[in-house]
Amino acid sequence: MTIEVDYRFPAGADAAKEAKVIAVGQTAGSWDERFSHRAELLAQHLGRVVCVTPQPDGTSIATVEFPEHNVEGDVPTLLTMIFGKYSMGGSGRVDAVRLPEDYGTPPKFGLAGIRRILGVPERPLVMAIFKPALGLSAEDHAAILREVAFAGLDIIKDDEILGDLPSAPTMERLRACRRVLDEVEKSTGRRVLYCTNLTGRGHELSEKARAMVAAGANALLLNVLSYGYGTAEALARDPQVGVPIFAHPALAGAFAASPDFGISYPVVLGTLMAHAGVDAVLYPAHYGSLPFTAANEFAIRDALRARGLACVPSAGIHPGVVPRVLGDYGNDVVLNAGSGIMDHPDGAAAGVQAFFDALAVAKPGVPFTQVDVPPTGPLRSAMLKWGLGKK
Amino acid sequence: MTIEVDYRFPAGADAAKEAKVIAVGQTAGSWDERFSHRAELLAQHLGRVVCVTPQPDGTSIATVEFPEHNVEGDVPTLLTMIFGKYSMGGSGRVDAVRLPEDYGTPPKFGLAGIRRILGVPERPLVMAIFKPALGLSAEDHAAILREVAFAGLDIIKDDEILGDLPSAPTMERLRACRRVLDEVEKSTGRRVLYCTNLTGRGHELSEKARAMVAAGANALLLNVLSYGYGTAEALARDPQVGVPIFAHPALAGAFAASPDFGISYPVVLGTLMAHAGVDAVLYPAHYGSLPFTAANEFAIRDALRARGLACVPSAGIHPGVVPRVLGDYGNDVVLNAGSGIMDHPDGAAAGVQAFFDALAVAKPGVPFTQVDVPPTGPLRSAMLKWGLGKK
Repeated sequence: MTIEVDYRFPAGADAAKEAKVIAVGQTAGSWDERFSHRAELLAQHLGRVVCVTPQPDGTSIATVEFPEHNVEGDVPTLLTMIFGKYSMGGSGRVDAVRLPEDYGTPPKFGLAGIRRILGVPERPLVMAIFKPALGLSAEDHAAILREVAFAGLDIIKDDEILGDLPSAPTMERLRACRRVLDEVEKSTGRRVLYCTNLTGRGHELSEKARAMVAAGANALLLNVLSYGYGTAEALARDPQVGVPIFAHPALAGAFAASPDFGISYPVVLGTLMAHAGVDAVLYPAHYGSLPFTAANEFAIRDALRARGLACVPSAGIHPGVVPRVLGDYGNDVVLNAGSGIMDHPDGAAAGVQAFFDALAVAKPGVPFTQVDVPPTGPLRSAMLKWGLGKK
Repeated sequence: MTIEVDYRFPAGADAAKEAKVIAVGQTAGSWDERFSHRAELLAQHLGRVVCVTPQPDGTSIATVEFPEHNVEGDVPTLLTMIFGKYSMGGSGRVDAVRLPEDYGTPPKFGLAGIRRILGVPERPLVMAIFKPALGLSAEDHAAILREVAFAGLDIIKDDEILGDLPSAPTMERLRACRRVLDEVEKSTGRRVLYCTNLTGRGHELSEKARAMVAAGANALLLNVLSYGYGTAEALARDPQVGVPIFAHPALAGAFAASPDFGISYPVVLGTLMAHAGVDAVLYPAHYGSLPFTAANEFAIRDALRARGLACVPSAGIHPGVVPRVLGDYGNDVVLNAGSGIMDHPDGAAAGVQAFFDALAVAKPGVPFTQVDVPPTGPLRSAMLKWGLGKK
């Protein structure tokens, strides 16, 4: 089996030459007559330029094939091989990566597993984010959770920047919230997932994840790019961490925001995540508050779905965009809102209700009109505040 | 104590506004009257824009100050805070980061510790890289090591892409090389460090590092950016991994190669490495084979030295550039050559000797002339092959 990578080179670059540099320089390298007795073995490790294709915009895409036996079936050795030293060499960008089906770590739950835990087989899932991000007590978190969980929310997550701080220790927050989750399940029969942010120094991260799960965490949030894909794989393969892992995209732009350098968003948030063992991935929606193209969003969606992960388009999601989300995703999507729930004019519970009201009346892909939206109530208030989202 | 970050914004961006977005959006965020009872606590987590300074080239640099108590004293939570979500927001780049002295993890050995182990208190250290990168057997590695180690080499490292492959298991290579290291020490009294590449899936990386050290590894090579700074910190803090850690810069260009996006080389390879527990950092020399500016190289050098780490300018180092390296670094530098030793016309041992010959006659900062270089011998052969390096 081989690994294929598409590199994009800017207009004017000698794409064929650069591709050759990658195929050789990122694998066995060159050798002279002293190693002729090893030539056969060395040659088995060389990459190969498959094709170089000029693009309408003047750039070129070169596809390089790498032997799978050069790497260890994980994401870190893959990254070192396909872009390690070459990333400092100048002119190429990783546009796409195609991996063997069994490469890396599959999701343990994926969307289907998350639906099973929640007992919600079909409709889109509704997810919220604790706000404000920093500065609330464990009891503040529990109070917010009580409000939204009883309103019907499926999933809630910490803000990605909320770590394990002396002013708000993760374990205290988790225990306070876990009591609420139990209360909700006892009185309504519904399960709610709380993605607790897993942070901490490298040497204690695994222990901490296990301790959190032992203390009642039923899902984890991980800033995969701050900790490394290897950390996600480690958690996914740890039998003592048997809960869904939600990947946050923080730092993705450090790799992907430039059109000419780095590694593309579909690779960073799609392909690599899909082979790193996580179950759900958050990423910007193209009609959200971050500048993000529809092409990137859909490429990420397709890469995640190909491996059964849950898609969580995020940032600037509010009830007014629900028809568009349904048009792009159908029912298999997690509607994840921060302000779009927490800052609802009538409070956070109304914020949740507005999403369910939106789901009840939305026609996929058809923007809401006055007629669709009830004249009063949570959805109407949300629409008055946030409208239909950016074009 | 506070953390200060300089963000560079392109000409035309509203730097003051963007800086404010970062100072608030990457910390507590905004809140309304419902959280007025927590206002004092929330405000303690806010960042602050220190200044916005237009630059001669039309860009602007904004300095934002973050409370140290927002993060956990490690690199991953720092990255999430200073650039996490904002990295996807568009227009800024992290140019410089200033951390409290006690932030993160100090190097356990640094240059002084490496010198102590080697028993080389003053002169520049000479380091080689195994070549070819992939496809050699453990015994091939041992044979190469024997040649260069008896020639006086101080340090050798695996190629960063050489993982733990069925065709060449790390432990076999390590054991074969360890026998040579012992042989050299027994017969010459000299110690040689072998930076064995640490690779593997996240959940077994710590165990593997311990097993490697138990099996005789006296230094480790880590692709810090492929595995995450947290992995480096974990290794540095592990009492069972008591050997110097050499950080390879693979993947650094994915963050830093763009002038407009991402995180600058001095931050990625200098500041963050210096606070992540590693002892030595490899990075491109500006007269080497990779496109790299002198300004970036010197900023990295200064960030590493401020914390006692060893500087290892690399890529395209050969005997002809020794006077320039000495001019830039003085004696406190590791001269690290791959081809520049292994591809010496008279063999790898002559490649090592050529470096020592160069050190014997070089005047710091003054390029070699015909007069300096003996008319025959390893240094002359090296000069005929590689010259004085690029201007």
